[in-house]
Amino acid sequence: MSSSWRDNLIRHIHPGEWVRPGLSPFSIVVIGSILLAVTVQVLETESSLTDEWRSVFSSVDLIVGFIFIIDFIVRWQFPAEPQYTGIAGKLKYLVKPGTLVDLLAILPFIIHPYLELLGANDLAFLRTLQLVKIMRIADLGPVSRGMDRVGRALATKKVELSVTFTLAFVSIVAAATLLYLVEATAQPDAFGSIPRALWWSLATLTTVGYGDVAPITPVGQILGGFVAILGVGIIAMPAGILASSFSTITIEEDSREKK
Amino acid sequence: MSSSWRDNLIRHIHPGEWVRPGLSPFSIVVIGSILLAVTVQVLETESSLTDEWRSVFSSVDLIVGFIFIIDFIVRWQFPAEPQYTGIAGKLKYLVKPGTLVDLLAILPFIIHPYLELLGANDLAFLRTLQLVKIMRIADLGPVSRGMDRVGRALATKKVELSVTFTLAFVSIVAAATLLYLVEATAQPDAFGSIPRALWWSLATLTTVGYGDVAPITPVGQILGGFVAILGVGIIAMPAGILASSFSTITIEEDSREKK
Amino acid sequence: MSSSWRDNLIRHIHPGEWVRPGLSPFSIVVIGSILLAVTVQVLETESSLTDEWRSVFSSVDLIVGFIFIIDFIVRWQFPAEPQYTGIAGKLKYLVKPGTLVDLLAILPFIIHPYLELLGANDLAFLRTLQLVKIMRIADLGPVSRGMDRVGRALATKKVELSVTFTLAFVSIVAAATLLYLVEATAQPDAFGSIPRALWWSLATLTTVGYGDVAPITPVGQILGGFVAILGVGIIAMPAGILASSFSTITIEEDSREKK
Amino acid sequence: MSSSWRDNLIRHIHPGEWVRPGLSPFSIVVIGSILLAVTVQVLETESSLTDEWRSVFSSVDLIVGFIFIIDFIVRWQFPAEPQYTGIAGKLKYLVKPGTLVDLLAILPFIIHPYLELLGANDLAFLRTLQLVKIMRIADLGPVSRGMDRVGRALATKKVELSVTFTLAFVSIVAAATLLYLVEATAQPDAFGSIPRALWWSLATLTTVGYGDVAPITPVGQILGGFVAILGVGIIAMPAGILASSFSTITIEEDSREKK
Repeated sequence: MSSSWRDNLIRHIHPGEWVRPGLSPFSIVVIGSILLAVTVQVLETESSLTDEWRSVFSSVDLIVGFIFIIDFIVRWQFPAEPQYTGIAGKLKYLVKPGTLVDLLAILPFIIHPYLELLGANDLAFLRTLQLVKIMRIADLGPVSRGMDRVGRALATKKVELSVTFTLAFVSIVAAATLLYLVEATAQPDAFGSIPRALWWSLATLTTVGYGDVAPITPVGQILGGFVAILGVGIIAMPAGILASSFSTITIEEDSREKK
Repeated sequence: MSSSWRDNLIRHIHPGEWVRPGLSPFSIVVIGSILLAVTVQVLETESSLTDEWRSVFSSVDLIVGFIFIIDFIVRWQFPAEPQYTGIAGKLKYLVKPGTLVDLLAILPFIIHPYLELLGANDLAFLRTLQLVKIMRIADLGPVSRGMDRVGRALATKKVELSVTFTLAFVSIVAAATLLYLVEATAQPDAFGSIPRALWWSLATLTTVGYGDVAPITPVGQILGGFVAILGVGIIAMPAGILASSFSTITIEEDSREKK
Repeated sequence: MSSSWRDNLIRHIHPGEWVRPGLSPFSIVVIGSILLAVTVQVLETESSLTDEWRSVFSSVDLIVGFIFIIDFIVRWQFPAEPQYTGIAGKLKYLVKPGTLVDLLAILPFIIHPYLELLGANDLAFLRTLQLVKIMRIADLGPVSRGMDRVGRALATKKVELSVTFTLAFVSIVAAATLLYLVEATAQPDAFGSIPRALWWSLATLTTVGYGDVAPITPVGQILGGFVAILGVGIIAMPAGILASSFSTITIEEDSREKK
Repeated sequence: MSSSWRDNLIRHIHPGEWVRPGLSPFSIVVIGSILLAVTVQVLETESSLTDEWRSVFSSVDLIVGFIFIIDFIVRWQFPAEPQYTGIAGKLKYLVKPGTLVDLLAILPFIIHPYLELLGANDLAFLRTLQLVKIMRIADLGPVSRGMDRVGRALATKKVELSVTFTLAFVSIVAAATLLYLVEATAQPDAFGSIPRALWWSLATLTTVGYGDVAPITPVGQILGGFVAILGVGIIAMPAGILASSFSTITIEEDSREKK
């Protein structure tokens, strides 16, 4: 009887144990709290909002903080996997990587009031640690299965992706070196050294193209044009490789289902 | 006899009932009116054009408004599906979602003159509602079948696309948080809070790269460079996933045709 | 005997008739002339170069002009297809579309000296017509076969590409309308009308992102962020569709070769 | 006995001969030296760093220079391929292309001190030659196999990629010509000649979009909008082609493995 009640609780609090489609009510509350916490963390950094909304932000912080603590304690005390039962298991649970994420998310909630009392406003950035809680979303049943499939897709083309990355790295350094050689005298601020030219080179080869710096000499613009065309290849190659690997994964799964 | 005349009319006014290739003359007139209405709506907001072209715009508005009303009335009175015949069916037709689009497109045409009489020029934006009529294009035979196929392609990779979206969302928030931490003091206007930094983060990770704001500190630029490279992945992943799903749909349809 | 000499000439002057791998010497000279003509046309518009290089440019213009005229005359007088032989065939050749391209490329060469004598420098832009000659490259054996294959790849996914184009068109107009509604008062120059907002909308949805105009109000930036994310989809959809269609073409050709 | 020791050495110094997974300790040291040399070369161009870090940079230069020389000498004296053994083979080794890369990487290390003594600081750019050493990474077992596979993927779609490149080239020239014709009078600096307009045309068609130059006339902006849409196609086509070719390579290799 007691065991059945416990089993039911475990199914509710561990997303991976939920047998019905969708998410358990408990998971929905936790996800909602995470999204709320992230939103509040993000908005709280904007001083023009904090004056008016301070009490709302504080209340939300308090509520989601308690939800995070309760969520952690129940998952700790009622683990789904047998290896985390018993005293030894509970200690083992405390040092597994997932727990670090949970504790980092709880930490700012606990230490923040003390920091405020001490006037340590410079440590306010510690609060952004709460954002790591967002990684809990990866635990959810469908997301977790999807992550797994995306991970396998990336793994099947590991070699091709490494080659693309190597070519991209060499292109970025080579483009920065060339532009440094031809533009350094014309624009010492933007191209006066290879590290400075790297900023332009990265923005161009990823096709971001901020435009805060751009070659102005004719030779620099001709080289810049070739670099921009190379950038199309650097976008197209990983897209093509990923397309091929997602197709392979799909075909493999389809043929497995038929068997 | 009368029924045959009615059947013929229904075939002309409902794009889905048209049996010959291409579009019925009635549909071509409606599509032409929609494109004309959209063009005029767009141009009418430009005050440098309205002075000279006012009468042309008004005439076009009047004509397409009447075409929209006639189009709605005949499709309402001569429905293709049996469930919309009879008094009860005609009332049911009025509350289906497609009707809302039709009525929103007609509404500004009807209420605009009254607003002008009342001098309520501030409500001119109501006219842009007419733009929703553009959604009627989705009703057209080929577009509707294509939409369906694109929809199925997206549905087969729902999980992978959700994972990509989640990763993109986490990356955007994480990039904004990091740049806020390192650039806030150097550029308080652009990176003084996470919501402000989000604008840069979005522009970079989508490779849009406006360049109105960009990191200027060395650490900010190094982080910005990694974010730009991450942006290539955020473009490449959905492209790869969609490529794979369109291939799957094509293979499925080909093997269905062979059977 | 004479016929054999004629056959040999025809094989040399019509790229499609060339039986050996690569291009005939005649075609190589024509292609070289086209690229040279294009380069000179492009450089001649730059006044800082014309002073110093005028005589070189004039000489090149003269030489490639004669090559274009000879190229046209021999292909006209020694046609590869039987339908263009005889007086009637030769007249028919003069009105086929390909001839228009040839004549447009020759025209500026013939009329330019007269325009210069008349002092009609305003008509200098007529010279750029010579650039259409570049389309002759599409006649080349491998390029022509490649064009054909790319054309078929695009044709197999005509419906999906039309849907993508329609969605992109609707997105561009909708994004411009929304930004016009929220940014018009803050930036009347850039967003004061939908046609003005279209410039921003196009630059964002294609991920070009010039940054000459960008939303500055909070609501405008939030909407702008969603538009930028939508832009990723507008890049990813055609890439995915084309990937799938090129795969289909490859599979079809492979299975045809096996038969 | 001596031969066995020699075989062992050859296995360690030639990445392609290494039989165990991963890289040999010797290769790891060489790769580490290359990355270190590249990093130092890049940082040394930044004058704000050289004052403080001069001695560190010099030490690293000295150490990696010796490692490069040793690496070259042992690979030269103990070649893996029989054709490079003996006096004749050793001379043949000196003129193969790979040796040029090695010597270019060693050269600046040897001649730099002499240049410094002569006060020829203007030749400092010679040091960047050391960056070519980065190409040695392509020799590594997995990278070399990956390069090979990426090369074959590109080769299977050579014709389609050439067509895409030709279309891109024609589009870039055509876009620059059109914008020159409509924007030259409004913006003589940016669009006063086709070569100048090419800079805008390249930035737009590759979706880089610096925004340093952009059309400002209504006609120029309408044309610019179409060019931006064309740019999406220029990104999507190679991505689609590469996706298809990587899929073909994967399918071929899978069917070869089954046999």
